[in-house]
Amino acid sequence: MGSTAKSNILVVGFGGIGTITAYNLEASGLASVTGVLRSNYDHVNEHGFNIWSCDHGEIPSWKPTHISRTVPNVKDDASADPFDFIVVCTKNIVDVPPTVAEIIAPAVTPNHTAIVLVQNGLNIEKPLIAAFPGNIVISGISRMSSAELSPGKVFHQDHDILIIGAFRNPNLKVEDEQASAKRFRDLYNASGKATGQYEEDVAFMRWRKLVYNASWNSLCAITRMDTSKLRIAKFPVTELVLPVMLEIKSISRAAGVKLAADQEDVSLAGDALDAYFRPSMQQDIEKGNFMELEIIVGESVREAQKLGVPAPTLTFIYSLLKTLQAGTKMSKGMIEMPPANDYGAGEKLAKFKATIS
Amino acid sequence: MGSTAKSNILVVGFGGIGTITAYNLEASGLASVTGVLRSNYDHVNEHGFNIWSCDHGEIPSWKPTHISRTVPNVKDDASADPFDFIVVCTKNIVDVPPTVAEIIAPAVTPNHTAIVLVQNGLNIEKPLIAAFPGNIVISGISRMSSAELSPGKVFHQDHDILIIGAFRNPNLKVEDEQASAKRFRDLYNASGKATGQYEEDVAFMRWRKLVYNASWNSLCAITRMDTSKLRIAKFPVTELVLPVMLEIKSISRAAGVKLAADQEDVSLAGDALDAYFRPSMQQDIEKGNFMELEIIVGESVREAQKLGVPAPTLTFIYSLLKTLQAGTKMSKGMIEMPPANDYGAGEKLAKFKATIS
Repeated sequence: MGSTAKSNILVVGFGGIGTITAYNLEASGLASVTGVLRSNYDHVNEHGFNIWSCDHGEIPSWKPTHISRTVPNVKDDASADPFDFIVVCTKNIVDVPPTVAEIIAPAVTPNHTAIVLVQNGLNIEKPLIAAFPGNIVISGISRMSSAELSPGKVFHQDHDILIIGAFRNPNLKVEDEQASAKRFRDLYNASGKATGQYEEDVAFMRWRKLVYNASWNSLCAITRMDTSKLRIAKFPVTELVLPVMLEIKSISRAAGVKLAADQEDVSLAGDALDAYFRPSMQQDIEKGNFMELEIIVGESVREAQKLGVPAPTLTFIYSLLKTLQAGTKMSKGMIEMPPANDYGAGEKLAKFKATIS
Repeated sequence: MGSTAKSNILVVGFGGIGTITAYNLEASGLASVTGVLRSNYDHVNEHGFNIWSCDHGEIPSWKPTHISRTVPNVKDDASADPFDFIVVCTKNIVDVPPTVAEIIAPAVTPNHTAIVLVQNGLNIEKPLIAAFPGNIVISGISRMSSAELSPGKVFHQDHDILIIGAFRNPNLKVEDEQASAKRFRDLYNASGKATGQYEEDVAFMRWRKLVYNASWNSLCAITRMDTSKLRIAKFPVTELVLPVMLEIKSISRAAGVKLAADQEDVSLAGDALDAYFRPSMQQDIEKGNFMELEIIVGESVREAQKLGVPAPTLTFIYSLLKTLQAGTKMSKGMIEMPPANDYGAGEKLAKFKATIS
């Protein structure tokens, strides 16, 4: 092993999942990771990551081999080692630039770097294949639950399973794509701690995850109620959650993906009733962050429209999520708004308030 | 006037609108008001109401002629003067008992007391006519904006217009109903400060108000975004607000009420773009209070179903509002919920948190 060059890997996005993914890759001894850190760069540069992981144990201070504030410019630097894999663990908010393709562009070596998207949603590979037509794009669906509690402090709660498969890039040979995905799967398993699971049918795996995400994740975000609360109230499941699941099932079928007959039962019971689980978009809206609504819901609605499948509940939910996202843009000052006018009430109100205080 | 006995009026509900309504009735010199106060009883009993009103000016300390913590039991007390009018200014939350009919029952003298509902929504008279078949029920649609800022401190911002008309009680003569409504209108105008406006077509007035309430009020509550934010984002108006308005227009038409051809334009521009107005249900959900969703949205949906009118957007909105109301019941401990289980993470998490704090 000593004579084998390590795989040169760039990991972008060091939140809960990105940090554990990067740690696991380096723990194999077969990979050298360069980490692109944003908000936690200063903290990690000084102290390293402090990790508690159900798979890897207590790690008081760890840094990837290299860390950087920005995506390294390899394309224009002939002396730089090309990256074998770029593993993207950021949230994918296509409606708030820059896009993933724009972010990673400087680090992509044409016809060499394989891009691994450890991200939710549908059609996420399309803009990458368009931007990097000679590069392999790999799907990663992470099943772990891991959170960054404060800068550099990561708590990883349940076993890391990463479902890996190649997206279809029509410019490339399918055998090469599959071989690359398997190579990444082998790297992911090499630590002996995490599970890299190769699944050839990427479309199936992603539509299957959408059954949960388009329904629970959306409705918990809109109502700010966790999956248990919606189940305890009962009627939201019948009136909202289940209709969305069945709409996704019908869209996927029209798209050529046949999910299990009882997929909705599995997805309805996905979380324990006493777990009060808050899916990612609910956590995002509650924190005032952007939600991955386009790749989860927007793309599903567009597939439905393209295929002529009615999806009224999903379409309605999409409008509401877009509205909430616009609200977040307003809170962040990204949308111009007229100054508030109190139509003269303010002064009187202030005077009255002064007399009653 | 000295020889004329004053009208004996019970006002139930002393928030922003109830207080100004009661004050205006007594300001006529023609009415003696008994006020039923709940949360602000002790404060008002000691200090009176402190009011700033655009119609009535600065009123440092005022009490209705009588105040009471509970609805007086007139029915079983032969010596008590019967109430000529009971004016109900509470919120109308039919899905959270007690109902309005249950609340006022002890004070209703059969075949004598006219019940004035200063409340939003559709079909609100039905349970009252069922409970008090010999009593006149009057519709009051208040246009004023008035708020209780803290117990007993009321800020009344714009001119008090109360649209008054009789609901149809099939057990009674329509002339008697209309005469009673006009009597109340005259009482309301007698102070010379407020405007009591008699409108015979109650159904028309109430459906017209629903065009605004079912749409803006619901969508602001669900998104927690005011009417200006939804208008600035633009697409929520096209995708959500306007479809609801047109569904209400179609339901009302099937119910025999023809609204103005351009009613949706009027209702879309109901609030100034720079007013950032938060409708009542938005204010309620943000304060953790119950919303009047059944009389605004639930009854509209049930009318649609009864009349065979499709109302898909309104039906979705109804499901979401019911879900949010269930969430409020959960927060108030009114729904039994299984204790949370952290599946072992809590202890590890607590330990990890202790090391990083």
